[in-house]
Amino acid sequence: MAGRRVYGSLKSPATLKVLVNLFEHDLDFEFVSVDLDNGEHKNKHFLSMNPFGQVPVYEDRGIKQFESRAIIRCMAHEYGKKGEELIYWDAKKQAVVANWIDVEDHHFEPPALKLISELLVKPKKSFTPDEGIVAEAEAELAKVLDVYEARLEKSKYLASEKYTIVDLLHLPNLQSLMGTPAKKLIESRPRVSSWCSDILARPAWAKVLDMQKKAQA
Amino acid sequence: MAGRRVYGSLKSPATLKVLVNLFEHDLDFEFVSVDLDNGEHKNKHFLSMNPFGQVPVYEDRGIKQFESRAIIRCMAHEYGKKGEELIYWDAKKQAVVANWIDVEDHHFEPPALKLISELLVKPKKSFTPDEGIVAEAEAELAKVLDVYEARLEKSKYLASEKYTIVDLLHLPNLQSLMGTPAKKLIESRPRVSSWCSDILARPAWAKVLDMQKKAQA
Repeated sequence: MAGRRVYGSLKSPATLKVLVNLFEHDLDFEFVSVDLDNGEHKNKHFLSMNPFGQVPVYEDRGIKQFESRAIIRCMAHEYGKKGEELIYWDAKKQAVVANWIDVEDHHFEPPALKLISELLVKPKKSFTPDEGIVAEAEAELAKVLDVYEARLEKSKYLASEKYTIVDLLHLPNLQSLMGTPAKKLIESRPRVSSWCSDILARPAWAKVLDMQKKAQA
Repeated sequence: MAGRRVYGSLKSPATLKVLVNLFEHDLDFEFVSVDLDNGEHKNKHFLSMNPFGQVPVYEDRGIKQFESRAIIRCMAHEYGKKGEELIYWDAKKQAVVANWIDVEDHHFEPPALKLISELLVKPKKSFTPDEGIVAEAEAELAKVLDVYEARLEKSKYLASEKYTIVDLLHLPNLQSLMGTPAKKLIESRPRVSSWCSDILARPAWAKVLDMQKKAQA
């Protein structure tokens, strides 16, 4: 296992992002399931790994790291020459990747998570979605996807012609959004729609979905 | 000027973070003031540089970049050997820096900005702070500063024994918080308090404050 471990949950988008990156780089690892429903991420042992009590925590050769995007950035640099190369070694090209990682973080994920919470998580627990929150988050996400649509006119992927960790970071939330009525926001934008189909079809992502299926079985 | 330009506002914490990083690296640049009060960041020219309409935009040798943390990361790598070295070249040490950059982004800044808005911005416009928001944000920030206090027991700065961009990213919001009653959250934690005094006293930060003073004169 080369001492690589992911402490996380298959219900956590941040965990799934780290897992898909491991699969892209063809790295062996051990998955240690953290039971979020029973607050295992708030117990003393977990807080000693991440004082903010959030999954995932990633361990590689004895070094523990948290914050999924930090883990993914570092992994993509450390193992950039193994499996898929998802970053650039050229400073100017990597500047664009760094830029769009923060776009996913600050612009795409917040409204996406709100929509997933209202349209996917709440109904599963027999709660009714809050229409006001849904409308606001849809409007917010629509603006972001308009920017993406224009961006994808210029390059095949968000940061460049090549698939990078920028695209990868979108996978868990895109997958969830496609299972909600908010998928109309994606399907109504032709370039966003084909980018979404393209990246969701990556073999590394199929391996993550397979892990989820096996865990549910 | 070496073709470096910052399009931003001296009222924007994100702009100030980029400026202090330029000063730390002893880099020449031109500052192009963007008038936020008159919505200059939402006009066509500005949106062509950052489609999300936020300052700052940073231009270096013809490449334009937005998202302040992305700008700072890339600048610290590109010019890491000029002026202060605020990152690590060793992958394991840099993993810790990457981790704590995201802590500032996801944990420190959100409650800090809420407190600054309620306790500094609103009173200047003769509005009354919302006590509920203040109490909630103070509780949120207190938890983060508890983690920092424990962290600073282990190393002089947040990511390591060395001052890095992690510490630098905190400067504008720490400076503002120290001008509000929320400074008690900092002053009541001895290690956080001396870390805060230490980093606010850096000559590069004095240069940013000087730019602000000159602009107000």
